[in-house]
Amino acid sequence: MSEVHFNRVALIGIGLIGSSLAHVMRVKKLADTIAISSRSEKTLKQAEELGLGDSYHTNPADAVKDADYVILCTPVGVVGELTKAIAGSLKKGAILSDVGSVKTSVVRQIRPHLPEGVHLVPAHPVAGTEFSGPDAGFATLFENRWCILTPEPGTDAAAVEAVKRFWEACGSDVEIMSAEHHDLVLAMTSHLPHLIAYNIVGTADDLESVTQSEVIKFSAGGFRDFTRIAASDPTMWRDVFLHNKEAVLETLGRFSEDLSALQRAIRWGDGEALFDLFTRTRAIRRSIIDIGQESDAPNFGRGGVAPRAKAQEPSE
Amino acid sequence: MSEVHFNRVALIGIGLIGSSLAHVMRVKKLADTIAISSRSEKTLKQAEELGLGDSYHTNPADAVKDADYVILCTPVGVVGELTKAIAGSLKKGAILSDVGSVKTSVVRQIRPHLPEGVHLVPAHPVAGTEFSGPDAGFATLFENRWCILTPEPGTDAAAVEAVKRFWEACGSDVEIMSAEHHDLVLAMTSHLPHLIAYNIVGTADDLESVTQSEVIKFSAGGFRDFTRIAASDPTMWRDVFLHNKEAVLETLGRFSEDLSALQRAIRWGDGEALFDLFTRTRAIRRSIIDIGQESDAPNFGRGGVAPRAKAQEPSE
Repeated sequence: MSEVHFNRVALIGIGLIGSSLAHVMRVKKLADTIAISSRSEKTLKQAEELGLGDSYHTNPADAVKDADYVILCTPVGVVGELTKAIAGSLKKGAILSDVGSVKTSVVRQIRPHLPEGVHLVPAHPVAGTEFSGPDAGFATLFENRWCILTPEPGTDAAAVEAVKRFWEACGSDVEIMSAEHHDLVLAMTSHLPHLIAYNIVGTADDLESVTQSEVIKFSAGGFRDFTRIAASDPTMWRDVFLHNKEAVLETLGRFSEDLSALQRAIRWGDGEALFDLFTRTRAIRRSIIDIGQESDAPNFGRGGVAPRAKAQEPSE
Repeated sequence: MSEVHFNRVALIGIGLIGSSLAHVMRVKKLADTIAISSRSEKTLKQAEELGLGDSYHTNPADAVKDADYVILCTPVGVVGELTKAIAGSLKKGAILSDVGSVKTSVVRQIRPHLPEGVHLVPAHPVAGTEFSGPDAGFATLFENRWCILTPEPGTDAAAVEAVKRFWEACGSDVEIMSAEHHDLVLAMTSHLPHLIAYNIVGTADDLESVTQSEVIKFSAGGFRDFTRIAASDPTMWRDVFLHNKEAVLETLGRFSEDLSALQRAIRWGDGEALFDLFTRTRAIRRSIIDIGQESDAPNFGRGGVAPRAKAQEPSE
């Protein structure tokens, strides 16, 4: 692992990703000082109680003062106004980065407010859980996960290298690509899956021929798998869809076309078409397991679930 | 737990469900003799090597002779021809059951071949993993899961009670409903989720703007969750869709309508509609966890995944 160290890191936003960064920076001694900012006093207080940082600021401009590394850990919809708010306080030579799931829009929002001499290195750690908030973070969240950097051509090479080393020190593998390509890849591997999951859970919630109690009881038939990512942070995900509109609509269009073909195969009883699709999808999971991005234990290795609580769920 | 015991149980088909039944029947001493049948000699040999039963038969008619409880554990597409093949060998007073994920079609297929004096009690254990075959089974698969029985009105009450007690002895909660209602409920909680999962994995596989290596690498952003159920047994699932066509098409229609509305909200930047949906979907997961049908550990409690194998996955 390469040597990496910052004097003062400012985390603007302290949810799942921000708090996980705070933990791993402590464990790996990546910073002398961690300054934390949140616009919510309640969140900031929670972060302080958890001892996540060294100083706490409701005004992000105070947090970034003298920081050599500033990481925006907020929903992607606010990075423009945030950059505007901190621009005057950013140190010359500082690195400005983020953790957003969308990259083109992040660059587009930040660029107009970026002071000269501050290096923008957008980043996206492809890691998370369905939990949110400052108490959801943990030091190993980024271990064995990918982090994608999307610096614009001409970005200071030392700054890019520093961010790369930082994420490697957090346990991640780093890949560099263009913001446009990132947004297309993630539309497929992350944004569309979340959209589909939110949608199917919504459909189940609305069905009047099947009671909600039945949906919940018999969810082990497959439905429950979708509810995990459909429990992710609503604000973060609203912003993702609003800010990666084109790529999401493009992949969603593909998905819907394919689904129509599948619908037709079912309607016309084309068992061969169904069998063919169901066979080739197995190989992809195998590959994901083989590169260590997934557990090969049955049912994700879920293990025993909570003991029965029949009393809460009367038979209809 | 009620006392339950059979002299001879015949398992026709010995995949994930059949082999799990064999295990739990041994552990809980639910049968004196377990007769196993498979039309595949290879599968039958594997079952014998695993010691799953007491006798092994390529001809199902031999397996059911003198059995007081016969359970069809095959894909739902073959239960009609199977019943025809065993009809002449079924003992008077025997109980014929199954484990199929579709119930109306199962009854429709079996009914014409059912000998007088044999009691049909269709069953569906809502349990499984993404693994298949005689070596995939384990004794605790049905623990804390629901099993749905769909006997027709007028079915012998003692036979229904015996099957109910059997599944309770396997660790399941039992619910009784009509075959029609079952098919609608499961279309929503199991069949549609599988269809959507198969479809999105297929879409990702076909995308030419994103490489397959990228889909696999960055799958932790959400996509990998879908690959689990899209790795389920292709024959079983082909039959489910061919045999629950109406209910699947109905719920798929709802899903597609809802998805179009979501697509429109994204296109027009309706953040409020997105936020509202993303908020209410959280409650359903909470309920599933509360009744003990799901783990509340982050990421399903997946735990550590396999060590990195970078060599297999070169950066593009």
